[in-house]
Amino acid sequence: MLRTHTCGELRISDVNKEVTLTGWVQRSRDKGGMLWIDLRDRYGITQLILEEGKTDASLLAAARQLGREFVIRAKGVVVERLSKNDKIATGEIEVRVSSIDILNTSKLPPFTIEDDTDGGDDLRMKYRYLDLRRSVVRENLLLRHKMAQQTRAYLDSQRFIEVETPVLIKSTPEGARDFVVPSRLNHGEFYALPQSPQTFKQLLMVSGFDRYYQIVKCFRDEDLRADRQPEFTQIDCEMSFITQEDILNTFEGLVRHLFKNVKGIEIPSLPRMTYDDAMKYYGSDKPDTRFDMKFVELNDVAKGRSFSVFDEAELVVGICASGCAGYTRKQLDELTEFVKRPQIGTKGLVYVRFEAGGAIKSSVDKFFQESDLKKIGEKFGAQPGDLVLILAGARDKTRKALNELRLLMGTQLGLRDKNKFSALWVLDFPLLEWNEETNRWFAMHHPFTSPKPDDIKLLDSDPGAVRANAYDCVINGTEVGGGSIRIHDRGTQQLMFSKLGFSDEEARRQFGFLMEAFEFGAPPHGGIAFGFDRLCSLFGGSDSIRDFIAFPKNNAGRDMMIDTPATILQEQLDELGIAVKVAKP
Amino acid sequence: MLRTHTCGELRISDVNKEVTLTGWVQRSRDKGGMLWIDLRDRYGITQLILEEGKTDASLLAAARQLGREFVIRAKGVVVERLSKNDKIATGEIEVRVSSIDILNTSKLPPFTIEDDTDGGDDLRMKYRYLDLRRSVVRENLLLRHKMAQQTRAYLDSQRFIEVETPVLIKSTPEGARDFVVPSRLNHGEFYALPQSPQTFKQLLMVSGFDRYYQIVKCFRDEDLRADRQPEFTQIDCEMSFITQEDILNTFEGLVRHLFKNVKGIEIPSLPRMTYDDAMKYYGSDKPDTRFDMKFVELNDVAKGRSFSVFDEAELVVGICASGCAGYTRKQLDELTEFVKRPQIGTKGLVYVRFEAGGAIKSSVDKFFQESDLKKIGEKFGAQPGDLVLILAGARDKTRKALNELRLLMGTQLGLRDKNKFSALWVLDFPLLEWNEETNRWFAMHHPFTSPKPDDIKLLDSDPGAVRANAYDCVINGTEVGGGSIRIHDRGTQQLMFSKLGFSDEEARRQFGFLMEAFEFGAPPHGGIAFGFDRLCSLFGGSDSIRDFIAFPKNNAGRDMMIDTPATILQEQLDELGIAVKVAKP
Repeated sequence: MLRTHTCGELRISDVNKEVTLTGWVQRSRDKGGMLWIDLRDRYGITQLILEEGKTDASLLAAARQLGREFVIRAKGVVVERLSKNDKIATGEIEVRVSSIDILNTSKLPPFTIEDDTDGGDDLRMKYRYLDLRRSVVRENLLLRHKMAQQTRAYLDSQRFIEVETPVLIKSTPEGARDFVVPSRLNHGEFYALPQSPQTFKQLLMVSGFDRYYQIVKCFRDEDLRADRQPEFTQIDCEMSFITQEDILNTFEGLVRHLFKNVKGIEIPSLPRMTYDDAMKYYGSDKPDTRFDMKFVELNDVAKGRSFSVFDEAELVVGICASGCAGYTRKQLDELTEFVKRPQIGTKGLVYVRFEAGGAIKSSVDKFFQESDLKKIGEKFGAQPGDLVLILAGARDKTRKALNELRLLMGTQLGLRDKNKFSALWVLDFPLLEWNEETNRWFAMHHPFTSPKPDDIKLLDSDPGAVRANAYDCVINGTEVGGGSIRIHDRGTQQLMFSKLGFSDEEARRQFGFLMEAFEFGAPPHGGIAFGFDRLCSLFGGSDSIRDFIAFPKNNAGRDMMIDTPATILQEQLDELGIAVKVAKP
Repeated sequence: MLRTHTCGELRISDVNKEVTLTGWVQRSRDKGGMLWIDLRDRYGITQLILEEGKTDASLLAAARQLGREFVIRAKGVVVERLSKNDKIATGEIEVRVSSIDILNTSKLPPFTIEDDTDGGDDLRMKYRYLDLRRSVVRENLLLRHKMAQQTRAYLDSQRFIEVETPVLIKSTPEGARDFVVPSRLNHGEFYALPQSPQTFKQLLMVSGFDRYYQIVKCFRDEDLRADRQPEFTQIDCEMSFITQEDILNTFEGLVRHLFKNVKGIEIPSLPRMTYDDAMKYYGSDKPDTRFDMKFVELNDVAKGRSFSVFDEAELVVGICASGCAGYTRKQLDELTEFVKRPQIGTKGLVYVRFEAGGAIKSSVDKFFQESDLKKIGEKFGAQPGDLVLILAGARDKTRKALNELRLLMGTQLGLRDKNKFSALWVLDFPLLEWNEETNRWFAMHHPFTSPKPDDIKLLDSDPGAVRANAYDCVINGTEVGGGSIRIHDRGTQQLMFSKLGFSDEEARRQFGFLMEAFEFGAPPHGGIAFGFDRLCSLFGGSDSIRDFIAFPKNNAGRDMMIDTPATILQEQLDELGIAVKVAKP
């Protein structure tokens, strides 16, 4: 090694040792006779000192020329610092330098390599290798490494086997769009990149592997929203000879193991909530349960008071914001504006203030007597000082809108602390959901999810009422994982494909191998996949998965650093037997 | 769980326990009043017993109907076996069955699920999920899992960080062919799949990550030879602030750790051999050092005896096969035929027999006196009973041919035992190699490999003589890993690209980001990549990497099970802005 120690390991007990350090010049301070250099590497920062009189004059002169981000090798002796720095682990010592080699110079970086950088997003992405030098970004990737280690440690302890599944697979147009790869050896034919290893992990169960996992890259060619990546990583798992209960227990174990071993937090056993309850009480299948503020349905007390907005609504439903009775007119107007935005789309907001003094005031005083408002307050258990916010309209849309309002209130009230964690299971999802645009049923999870046996009889008469053996793991209002007990017989799988509008021929062409496999002794099985990028960002207290990916793509799917996608040579296109039809303008 | 125990865990100490097992019917034996069923899962096989009189008659009748590979759940009591089977871990007990549920039926598999199967290669690949049920194949994947676990354990202990690098990157036509992925959002532009994460791991070093690793999928669109896969897995590593010595020591540590912890074998420290010596003594840069049989060069004793084949040859070189003096004329003719095959391409083989009785006989007795032959024998240290085999011709071609002959002799003499391991480093590779077809120099390793500082001066005058800071790890005649100390300054990297025939514009377009990164404080760094599939097959004692890949592709790059590559919808092509020019006939 070019060094004897890293920049993070010297302590007071090392005083008088001859050491050699390597790293980057973080900053220099030149106080006349004294020159200090902060030398940085992955492991920390160590202060170097050079002093007129004590340091060779030519060395001092050379050291004064070192620029930010120069890579150097410094030899010297560890000495105790006069003024100690208790913010860094090496803060009790410094190294009195006897020689310096410049291992590489550096141009002035386009932004400062500090926790608070002056670099904008585009610039930092273009020079991602410099952005990664910032300790906040490096810590994110170290966290990710630890998450992967601990995931493997837990699953290994549960006798899961890591098996690599192929990346060059077959396009299956159901679901999201595939990235495809033209085959040079078979002109006109293509591989596709996997959206998940779903069918392969099921085949591994058919093979008897019993417990499989993989931390694996997956791909989706979707129009990118903020914080979606065309390539992303899953913790992908599958188990045989299990019931849903076994899956929930095993992966609750994983989540708790990660919290304990990565964050040092003991979280309680994960509560379970049905999809129906999640929608009823939170208006979302991924409720943020860090705070309560549950929905209360008010049809019985809100209707029949000649207030047509309520009378004509399918659902009148509200939340109670503790201690918000003092909200000003302006604040209430802002909330009203919020719920009237096109993305949320309600017609208005009704409020009831339960003032600290006991008075009750509402925006519907014209229609409601105080006794009516009291009844509403009782339904919430509202206390003096609370504010009840009510929406009305079509059931699903109103619930969705109230979910947004609830989250906004949670944020405003500081109830969504990124360092607090609330995890739960949401269960009993519908098997199918109706798509208005294409006018057909889609699998809510995916076509391999099994219906609840009791509900199969409804598949023809009331498809939307059929519940699935499907479950999501939700933390802080984010779906971090989802899975299901799978279909494991050909008959049910064929029935499912036909309900989803596949012709027999389409089903056979795309998934014939799986249905055939089910005829050779497929065991009962099920599994789950966790979004690893999302899980890391959640553990890291960030909203952005990009912060936890070493080399992410931007919202246009472009890697700004290597500047890709890019054109390829005509020769390459010819070899692949394809032509570009519409060149970029 | 649907079971209380696996099929691999019951022992004599479990006798009298009520248990529930699940698994596949491996086979049944019906001996009149007794029916035995071998029940199999990933963990082992347990024998079930049903007996007329003791077992319910309808249960016995139903059990007699169970076919091979049916999936069942059996309840019963553990009893001691009358006739024990010491070949399996559960061989002292059996389970007296009280009930059986059929969890799934099975059609008759297209081949037998046994270690020695009757299924041909194509059939087994088509039904790979059944092939994977065979314990030999399952064991291979369990070995692979263990290899990955132990690789991570070692590298974690050495403070390496696992970082995921992107799969959708940029095409760089230097080297092997890329697989490309058309971009839907940028018509006419493409991503490429990585042949290795080379540039990204170097950028991670520029970022200060210091020690990186990844077990990662890589892709090469090559014409497939036997035992090459379009997607393959690497253990990819890089370190900063190191010398070549540090890399060799660190990864010798990995190799020895794997042998110790996966195979239970302590291998000695890895010997080191220069590329020049490897070529001189073994005619190969990946010598099989499980056996000696080194080349001996004979120009001094072979020339000048009026034997024109030797006199006109650039090199006369031979090996000594111990104890082979008794080879028959037929055996010697076969060896001659072998070296005259077009793939090997020598004109003939000279032998000298040092017979047990002391006589010396050769195929060149016409030209060589016994004293000449004795001198040749002395050069080999040949003993009575040994056979010396000699080739002559152009140096490099003759060495290559003699390498093939040496390996053949090693195989014939049983010196290449798959359960014996000999590992070494080959060092000081040439930086460049001349390609006759394209009439230019290519990087022997890759364009990021640094030349030895002493040799840089030869880059213009004698490019072929420039040695690189490059090294291969060779085990049993297979290159399992290779790497180099990298260039870390823009000037040298530019020089290298220009020697490789890149125009400045090409270099900038393809690798501008890397050269730019080198200007912002790149540390000295180097690394290595191990072929993980190959390493697993070597540890598993197999010549075929396919046996160690769950879902491999065949030699035409096709996955026979899911039948891909395949055509995609016109709609998909349209969205991607590409057209198929030449459809498959």
